[in-house]
This record gives sequence, C-alpha cells and structure tokens, in this order.
Amino acid sequence: MKKKEDFSTWLNDIIDRAGILDIRYPIKGTYVWRPYGFKVRANVLRILRGLLDETGHEEVLFPLLIPEEEFMKEAIHVKGFEDEVYWVTHGGLTPLNVKLALRPTSETAIYPMFALWIRSHADMPIKVYQVVNVFRYETKATRPLIRLREITTFKEAHTAHATPEDAERQVEEALSIYKRFFDTLGIPYVVSKRPDWDKFPGADYTIAFDTVLPDGRSLQIGTVHNLGTNFSKTFDILFENTQGEQEHAYQTCYGISDRVIASHIAIHGDDKGLSLMPEIAPVQCVIVPIIFKGREEAVLRAVEKAEKALKGLRVHVDRGEGTPGSKFYHWEMKGVPLRIEIGPRDAEKDTAVLVRRDTGEKKTVPLGDLSGSAAAALREMEASMRKKAEDELKAMITEAATLEEAARILREKGGIIRTVWCGEKECGVEIEEVLNAKLLGTNNESASGPCIHCGGKGRHILHISRSY
Amino acid sequence: MKKKEDFSTWLNDIIDRAGILDIRYPIKGTYVWRPYGFKVRANVLRILRGLLDETGHEEVLFPLLIPEEEFMKEAIHVKGFEDEVYWVTHGGLTPLNVKLALRPTSETAIYPMFALWIRSHADMPIKVYQVVNVFRYETKATRPLIRLREITTFKEAHTAHATPEDAERQVEEALSIYKRFFDTLGIPYVVSKRPDWDKFPGADYTIAFDTVLPDGRSLQIGTVHNLGTNFSKTFDILFENTQGEQEHAYQTCYGISDRVIASHIAIHGDDKGLSLMPEIAPVQCVIVPIIFKGREEAVLRAVEKAEKALKGLRVHVDRGEGTPGSKFYHWEMKGVPLRIEIGPRDAEKDTAVLVRRDTGEKKTVPLGDLSGSAAAALREMEASMRKKAEDELKAMITEAATLEEAARILREKGGIIRTVWCGEKECGVEIEEVLNAKLLGTNNESASGPCIHCGGKGRHILHISRSY
Repeated sequence: MKKKEDFSTWLNDIIDRAGILDIRYPIKGTYVWRPYGFKVRANVLRILRGLLDETGHEEVLFPLLIPEEEFMKEAIHVKGFEDEVYWVTHGGLTPLNVKLALRPTSETAIYPMFALWIRSHADMPIKVYQVVNVFRYETKATRPLIRLREITTFKEAHTAHATPEDAERQVEEALSIYKRFFDTLGIPYVVSKRPDWDKFPGADYTIAFDTVLPDGRSLQIGTVHNLGTNFSKTFDILFENTQGEQEHAYQTCYGISDRVIASHIAIHGDDKGLSLMPEIAPVQCVIVPIIFKGREEAVLRAVEKAEKALKGLRVHVDRGEGTPGSKFYHWEMKGVPLRIEIGPRDAEKDTAVLVRRDTGEKKTVPLGDLSGSAAAALREMEASMRKKAEDELKAMITEAATLEEAARILREKGGIIRTVWCGEKECGVEIEEVLNAKLLGTNNESASGPCIHCGGKGRHILHISRSY
Repeated sequence: MKKKEDFSTWLNDIIDRAGILDIRYPIKGTYVWRPYGFKVRANVLRILRGLLDETGHEEVLFPLLIPEEEFMKEAIHVKGFEDEVYWVTHGGLTPLNVKLALRPTSETAIYPMFALWIRSHADMPIKVYQVVNVFRYETKATRPLIRLREITTFKEAHTAHATPEDAERQVEEALSIYKRFFDTLGIPYVVSKRPDWDKFPGADYTIAFDTVLPDGRSLQIGTVHNLGTNFSKTFDILFENTQGEQEHAYQTCYGISDRVIASHIAIHGDDKGLSLMPEIAPVQCVIVPIIFKGREEAVLRAVEKAEKALKGLRVHVDRGEGTPGSKFYHWEMKGVPLRIEIGPRDAEKDTAVLVRRDTGEKKTVPLGDLSGSAAAALREMEASMRKKAEDELKAMITEAATLEEAARILREKGGIIRTVWCGEKECGVEIEEVLNAKLLGTNNESASGPCIHCGGKGRHILHISRSY
C-alpha cells in the first residue's frame, strides 16, 4: 500500500486497489467503474438526486450528440470548448453530412428545446437536470476521477426564469443545494466568484466551489452560473411577459462531476486505504467472526444475532477463509466505517467489539444494545469526519499581505491564500503570473486595506491557489 | 387525439402528448426524455436492476468509446456492426491517431478487461451489467423508442464461466429473469431460438423474446446469447482450470432496451392515451376534488383524508383550475391507473369513487377503507391488464400448414405464424422471401408433420412474422 504523503501515487493506487475503478482501459483519460466503485457512485447520486427532486427539479435525458450548427451558434461558448470537443464524422463507412459533437456540456443540446417549451411567463420556472457522460479532449495530463476525457458522472441542471430576480434566487438555491450536498459528503469547500476572465463561456458570472486536496492544490468541485440572457438571445428563448411583450428568458445552470468522489476519497482516506462516510459506504458495518477451533458454534450464533440486530444498515458478514487480521486489513482498505468483531469471549459475555474506521477507536458493547450502539457510532463518525475535514481545510487557508508572503506560503504549504485585491483584471493576471497560481476569485465579504499587488484600494477578499 | 387503429401515428402522438419524449430534437433517431417519461423509465429500470441484483449480477460502467483496434479484433462481430458504427475522428481541431467507435454494444470494450480480471476458475462466474447509451447509424426509418440512432436505455449483461455447462445455466437464468421482467410489465412474449443466420454476430446461438404490436408486426424486446468461446479466443480470456491447464472462458451476454417501454405503451394504451401498470406509473392514484360553490370545505377535508389514507402509494391531488371533466381527460391521457373522485355527496357520505383506467369501471367505497380498496383495485388491475395482453397475443399466434395459408394470415391479420420447419437454411431463407416475413426462429417443442416449404420431415416448430 502506498503512503498518503505521496499523494498522487497513493490516490491512483487506492482507487485501483479498493475496486473503485479499473484504470487500465485502453483509452487515455477513460476508466471503468467496478462494482464497489459503482455502488459508491450510486449512493452519491442518490443523495444529489434527493436534494434536487425535493427542490422541484425534474430529471430529464437529452441526446449525447449535438449537430455542428447548434453547437456553433453561441460564439463565446464555442470559443471556450472548441479545442476539446470530440467530433463524430462517420456513420459506418459513410461520411456524415453534418458533423456531430459529443457533448462537452449540454447547453447547446438543451436550449433549442427550451425555445420550444417556453411560450409564456407561466411556463416558467423550468428546472431540469440530467446525469450523463460528457466528453473533453483534454490535452493536459489525465487523472482518474479528476481530469477525464469521458466524464462519466456529470450532473448538470438547467433553469429558465421570467425575471432576472428569479434567476438570482435560483443561483442562491443552487448554492444552498450544493452546500448541503458537500456537507453531507464531508467535503469542505471555499466559495468564490470566479474572475471575469475565468467564468463559464457564455455566463454573466460563475460561482465555484473549491476544496483543497492533501497535496495542497485546490480542486474545483462544483460551479453555478448565472447565464443572464446570453443563451436565450442566441437560441431565441422568448416568452410573453405579464405586460404581453416578448422578452428573453433568464437562465442559470450548475454542475457537479466525478470529482466529488475523488475529493471524498482524497480527503478522508489514509495510509490504510479508503475511509468512507456511512451515507455513501456500500457496506456500513462488516461483522468479522473470530473463530477458535471447538468454539465455533457460540460465535456463529452471536454473529447471527448481531446481523439481525443491524437490519436496516448495509451489513456484510465476512464468513470467508483467512485470518481475522487479513480481514481487518481488507475491510479497512475498502473504507468500511464500522467493524464489529465477535470472538468466543464476546459470545460468552454476549458482547461485541465496535471499531471505528476513522479513528481506530474500540468499544465493547452488549449485543442486546448493538443496534443502538452501531447507529450512534455511525452518527458520531459522520460528525467527526466532517469536523476533521473542515478543520483541515481551515488550516490550509492562510492570510497573506504581500506577494512574497503568498509565494512562500504556496511553496511551503500550499492551500488557499486569502488576501485583498483591487478588482482590476491587469492586477489579477499579474498576480497569477507572479505566483504561478490561479485566482479562485472573490467572496462577498467586504475588504479593507491595500491590494496585494498594486497597493491601491482593496475592494475584494481574494482566494488564490495552485489548482488542478 | 389519434385513434389507436392508426397505430404508428397514434404511438408517436401519445409519446409526445403524454410527455414521454420530445421528438423534435434536431438529429434523426434521437429524442429527449421529458420528466414524465423519465419517471416511467426510472421505474422500469428499478424493476430490472432489482431482478439482476438479486441474482448476483453486479452493476458496472464502461467507457463509451472503443479504440478501433479492439473493435476490429472479432471479425464476425465487426462484420455485423461495421455499417452502423459512428466513428469519432477528431479531438478539437486535431485528427485523432486512433479512431474511436461509439459503442454499438460493449463486448469489445468489456472483454479486454475480462482478460485482465480472470486468472483462475475461482475468479468465475463473473456476472456484470451496465445501463448505458449505445449508438447505431440506422439507415432504416427511425421511430421513437423502437428504432433509434442513440439507444438511451441499453441494459447489457455480460458473464464469464469456467465450464460450458455453467454458461448454459446462465442462459437459463437470463431467460428466467427476462420472463419475470416482462411478466411484471405486462408485456407478453414469444421465445424463439433465432435461425443461425440471424444470431448475434459472434454468438454460438441467440434466444430472443418477441412481442406483437397492435399493427400485427412483431418487435424484438430482449435477447440472450451464448457466446461459447468465440470472444474469449479473440480477447485471450484464459483461466487455469481445476486440472491446472489454461482454458478459454465460456461467455454469455443478454440485453434489453427502450423497446420495453415502447411495448408497454403500445400494448396497453388506447384511444384515450397511455394506460400504465401501477408498478411503473409515476402517479398511481390521482385524486380529483369535485368542487361546488359553497361546499368546498367538506370536499377538501375529505380529499385530505383520502390523501393521508393513500400514503405509501404515488399519489397526486389535482387541485388545479379547470373542470373535473378536463382533469379526467388529462389524467386518463397520462395513463394514471386509478382515479379517485370526491364530490360534495361523497364528502357527506364519507365515500369516494374509484375509477380504473384500464376498464373505466367505477366503484363507490367508504373513505375509511380507501387504503385497502385502492390497493386491491391496483392489484386487480395488474392481473387483468396482464391477462388481457396475454390473451391478445395468444389470439395473434396462428397455426398454418401451407405457405398460402401463412401468406393469407400475414396479410389479413398479421401476428405470428406457428408452423413446422425441416431446419434447413435453404428452406428457411425461401420461406422468408416467399412470405416477405422473418423467421423469428424455433421453440423447443417437438414437431411432427411436414416442413411448410419443402414438405420434408419437420424437425422444429417455427415462428414467422413481419417484424420491426
């Protein structure tokens, strides 16, 4: 097993070893979801769908292929994606009349249909989402779950509204949904409004969630875009407003990808392997019988009793061959939150030993009370894993007043620099160059003091980091 | 609304009108799943996944793209698909070094990984499945849910085994899973072993499920293939057997597509619209309050009571504007199995009127007993919808002893001809030509009497039909 301090190697190793992905598929940047990984992914999607459904979003599914003409309509959008779009040019041995893009994201597939669906203000809001595969011909180094050519898990939501205020409210709702989502998964985040030159191609503005991985680099894990009327003008999404006039719809979109799973693994895993929060663990409790010759029966009876008590949780009893030690090692590597050991002495005393994956903490509890103790242990784990991750992120956010200080922090420790910025693009771009880092953007706190670069009046709190 | 006797127009109309698909997407043979249709699809997939999971299948997810070299390895397989494969040739503005196929099916994506996963007989059986989009450049006329260029809902299972007997048993298990699946959805079927010249490219043999649509043509809705060692030889899937020798793995695969949803709609719908079985209906009961001025309160109290009583079912209360009549019309069109009407007289007497979508049958029941009555009505509906569909299919299977008789039946009534065949390819191909129909294949009953074409010794019961 690799050590987590060698982060990049460790991450690929554990993704492979724990059965999340097979990384040997013969196309760069595309991977195979194996059964265990697929179950984690399904649990993550269940949470995300739940949050979207309960806020009135409806799930839909649009075609993968986009005709060249539609794709090329929105000039700024095209500019942002043209280098990384895969093109289908042949059907069988026949060249196609119209080239087809593999969606890199679905604005240009969805919005022509919005134009058909929307006639009047009463047809809005429209709030739809889909969970699909999208494609980007990445020229940078690809990485499992982080930088992909086929993003297999892209949840994209698209909305249309009758007023700019309603679109603003939708941005707020999206932010609040994503906060709840990341909180549930124990992934801490920093929210930044991206600088204008780094917003989504075609958006009025972009608000992004970034987390920090153990190597000190930040990772964008979610984005929310206010599209204003940019796309509705391009795709003729018009509606009759309450005054009986034709008006362009106000739109937002927001997305989440496989990266949430990368973040969860990266943030909570350790030298022993995965450590999954109970909500998304395919197995929440593993029961390991500790058998001694001649005393099997009492132990197996106790194990059955324990299994029954834990009904309602996702439980696995490891009845396989192999020593208890090798089983412990295996299930720790798989990230199972709670291990329950039952040996002859436990059987005799009608007890079991609970072991937490995150802390290794052991606790002997009465079998009769196992259901309550296990549930309590899982609840405590969730809270303490979340708290630990949040504390770690906090420790990786460092204030800096000068570029020298910022450079030193980025060099020595990484993470996110918190500083003050005048808001001018010129200054921003130079900060990026000098620090060889990225402006994650600004938050909505008020700033005082001078800009870290030009010394002029500071207008924004700025987040900077080296990022994936 | 279109009449069902004009079947093809009716089907497209109801798919559109009921909000299953939007058929206006600007690429031929690709369509948009709208929210209501997506919910039907999700319910169908829930049933299918349940059946696969409980029989030890594990869900996985493979990449969409297949490198040309892998795709081209299995010559017979390639031959079967080369005219209909979409090819990606460019990433951004750059021509790719290796052309990439959009999977038309995933054997050539999955089996190279099986070769890595399988070392010993102890690694098997492997039973995996995925639910994905696949692509076929159809040159025939495309139709929503029936003949697609993007098949959005392709469930493909792939298995590997250490003995041919185990692969045979897997074919039996797959058949039994699909039977339960179609039975649950009320889709009647005929099972046929496809003639050798119509089997899946690369299979030893193919067993297929066909149903008959209201226009008398048959539709293939599921297939099970015994692949023998054809693919394992091509992709070097070798294992050490119990004698310590290297041996090629024995494989099967089996698939289900969007067509099950087409079949359900086509078979159970009528001139009023969809008629969905309760298991897959997004709304199982709609409650329609019948309001008269001045007596609203009593009705709304009764409606709330009804809603509470039906907790556990998927219930919608139509509190919208509009007359009761227009609401009835709307929800009938949407195929909601059970309508519950509550008017002032019902409120007074503490009763409700249940109306079945399939038969229109009405029944007044006490509100206090609504939960039980609704559940019973839904159960009865399931059984009677299933029975009705099975009877209809039976009536569309007709015996014929001569080609003239078969031709007349196909002309006048369509459906499936049941007859006797000698088993010779020559005869089979000529039967297809003479009847302008397709040999669905043979069943495993024993045959007696002469071959319908050559008059020679009959060896098989043969199914023939005009098919989609």
